[in-house]
Amino acid sequence: MRAAGIVVEHNPFHNGHLHHIKETREITGCDVVIAVMSGNFLQRGEPALVNKWSRTEMALNGGADIVIELPYVFATAQASEFARGAITLLDSLKCESFCFGSEEGNTATFLETLHILDLHKGEYNAEIHRHMQDGVSYPNALNKAFHFIQQKTEKKLVDLSKPNNILGYHYMEAAVARNSSMKPLTIQRIIAGYHDDIEEGVNIASATGIRKALFDPDSTADIHDYVPDSTAKLLQGWEQEWGLFANWELFWPYLRYSILRLSKDELKTFAEVTEGMEHAIARAAKETTAFHDFMERIKSKRFTWTRIQRMLTHILTGFTWDDLHQLTTPSYIRLLGMNSTGQDYLNAIKSDVPLPVISKVGKTTDPMLLLDCQTTDIYMSLLTNGSHPQALQLDWKTPPIIL
Amino acid sequence: MRAAGIVVEHNPFHNGHLHHIKETREITGCDVVIAVMSGNFLQRGEPALVNKWSRTEMALNGGADIVIELPYVFATAQASEFARGAITLLDSLKCESFCFGSEEGNTATFLETLHILDLHKGEYNAEIHRHMQDGVSYPNALNKAFHFIQQKTEKKLVDLSKPNNILGYHYMEAAVARNSSMKPLTIQRIIAGYHDDIEEGVNIASATGIRKALFDPDSTADIHDYVPDSTAKLLQGWEQEWGLFANWELFWPYLRYSILRLSKDELKTFAEVTEGMEHAIARAAKETTAFHDFMERIKSKRFTWTRIQRMLTHILTGFTWDDLHQLTTPSYIRLLGMNSTGQDYLNAIKSDVPLPVISKVGKTTDPMLLLDCQTTDIYMSLLTNGSHPQALQLDWKTPPIIL
Repeated sequence: MRAAGIVVEHNPFHNGHLHHIKETREITGCDVVIAVMSGNFLQRGEPALVNKWSRTEMALNGGADIVIELPYVFATAQASEFARGAITLLDSLKCESFCFGSEEGNTATFLETLHILDLHKGEYNAEIHRHMQDGVSYPNALNKAFHFIQQKTEKKLVDLSKPNNILGYHYMEAAVARNSSMKPLTIQRIIAGYHDDIEEGVNIASATGIRKALFDPDSTADIHDYVPDSTAKLLQGWEQEWGLFANWELFWPYLRYSILRLSKDELKTFAEVTEGMEHAIARAAKETTAFHDFMERIKSKRFTWTRIQRMLTHILTGFTWDDLHQLTTPSYIRLLGMNSTGQDYLNAIKSDVPLPVISKVGKTTDPMLLLDCQTTDIYMSLLTNGSHPQALQLDWKTPPIIL
Repeated sequence: MRAAGIVVEHNPFHNGHLHHIKETREITGCDVVIAVMSGNFLQRGEPALVNKWSRTEMALNGGADIVIELPYVFATAQASEFARGAITLLDSLKCESFCFGSEEGNTATFLETLHILDLHKGEYNAEIHRHMQDGVSYPNALNKAFHFIQQKTEKKLVDLSKPNNILGYHYMEAAVARNSSMKPLTIQRIIAGYHDDIEEGVNIASATGIRKALFDPDSTADIHDYVPDSTAKLLQGWEQEWGLFANWELFWPYLRYSILRLSKDELKTFAEVTEGMEHAIARAAKETTAFHDFMERIKSKRFTWTRIQRMLTHILTGFTWDDLHQLTTPSYIRLLGMNSTGQDYLNAIKSDVPLPVISKVGKTTDPMLLLDCQTTDIYMSLLTNGSHPQALQLDWKTPPIIL
């Protein structure tokens, strides 16, 4: 059996994701699509709308055969680490290829870009460093350095100001770095970009837009136009069970409390909190009562909104620089769900997989896995104000979802 | 002008407290009653019903002339430290006497007890040690050792199994230890004991009973029978402004979240968390969704309920063993409120007071004072789910209450 890998957040699963899975199957001719999916906290540094099991069910309904978890350590990391974690896991599961959406749409351009940037590594890094000294954010500095190299070499390179191109670049970089035999493939993203709002009449809309439709009481957009029925049903079921969807405004009272409770010296021990951001964070938490306003007060030219949200995610979950430095290599494959095809595939490759495949957490002592469990406990406790018995210890109580 | 000191929590101020202040004035013949009052967290290891300013207003309405804050460090400490902090502050404000309620009612008996226990210190401590080795709680061990000494010496000593006698004993111990010139006086507590519930028809009831009347929806007790009108009005005003009263069940979601977020190694860095309690605390937080049930799961013969609640208070506020060991001496007198008599008295003694009298927090760097401010921010944030602009930075915005 031949497997193709995809890297997903599915927050929530929508028609664009359906298209991605179908296309992956078509262009790779694979028997099995394996999705490595972020857990309850995402790369943009925010909680997922619904937890990882609900999103796993969406993915399986949408055509994925196996869903595994991208551990918290990678799911909430900068793009290069996010990509390295995901590619390592797909490679460990013997995928023949991996397939990602990009604005670019052509893997040859990615490979050329990797090659050129490698050739001009010294200059490229010096440019990045120079721009960061001027106080711009890391992605901006990267972008400026990249344009400098592009102009100098006069090559057609990938436009690295586009978010899906950046991720794609890092997937390919990670695959090259581990000398993976997986074949990289890319699908051009259609119609809606990553950050686009729902446009009425367009039925492939971005997840960000759908989230707006779910949270904005004035929105007349109907979610059924943008997501498969199975997703709509799962979102409805979630709302019936838990009453609401997770987001930063909902978790804000706990974030604020965490910050009030910590000294500045303690604040800067949390992953990604750097360059004096602890001062801005401590001050703003005292002064405001809503998450968006809090962000407006601490935003800086130096850091992207996403990077700052990641700092806050790590403060919220208690994830420190020490944790970040110690937990660097995926040590397990956490199975979140599968269908019978997926099950057959796993049985077939089982003996070749270099990492333990975890269906039951049990009495694990793996700190990376325990962190995933801990962040689920926190996510569910915050969602339910600590008062819902069904929300307790889900990682120990939830078997993989079998479709 | 002559001042008498009292040590109070006023949670809330009731007719018993009114009686205490009147009696203090009568038996001391003082011109000024100075109340040193716990801030927002109390010696039983729980949040106060209403914050320190509301309770200050109650105390001033009830006849106190000056209200100062007992810093968090002492207000949430075991009885001996609680007493030492309070007595130091009253002594610093040049009180001629201090007056406390007790079940005993006679200071001579307290002095005799201090004397006898000092004479038999070695044996007394050995007995305490022996009983603690058997696994009983510290107060129980103390009590058993005390009975041993009492039987041996055949003296009439204070019954140290009574909560107000214990506090009284430590007030007097602290006064003797600092060679204070303050004269100790005690009033026998009438009718309701510390933990008694409201009894209908008895209009001096304990604060614990009144709290039950406020929180128990099935209770038919009318708070007006037990508290002065001014207290009833202030409680009503508080409820109108903030919607509810603070208690552990209300703060539970945040306590639970704190515990989920911390490793066991981190848990045991918080003050009073000792002898493996971090294991029980970490496990129970994962398993339950309500504060009372949580307490039932972690209670132990080794520790009193109160002592365990103090551990939890320190986890909630982020107060560590290091903080406890570093912050040992009151370094300021925080003025919470006064009337014109109080103001005259402060003006008269100002030049003799060995500690700074703080009316405005301003840009203080005193860690003990900053801790008081931080615990107010936490208390108010938890009360309002971080969403009420009026709840921000009250220590910086609230001048002393002038009646």
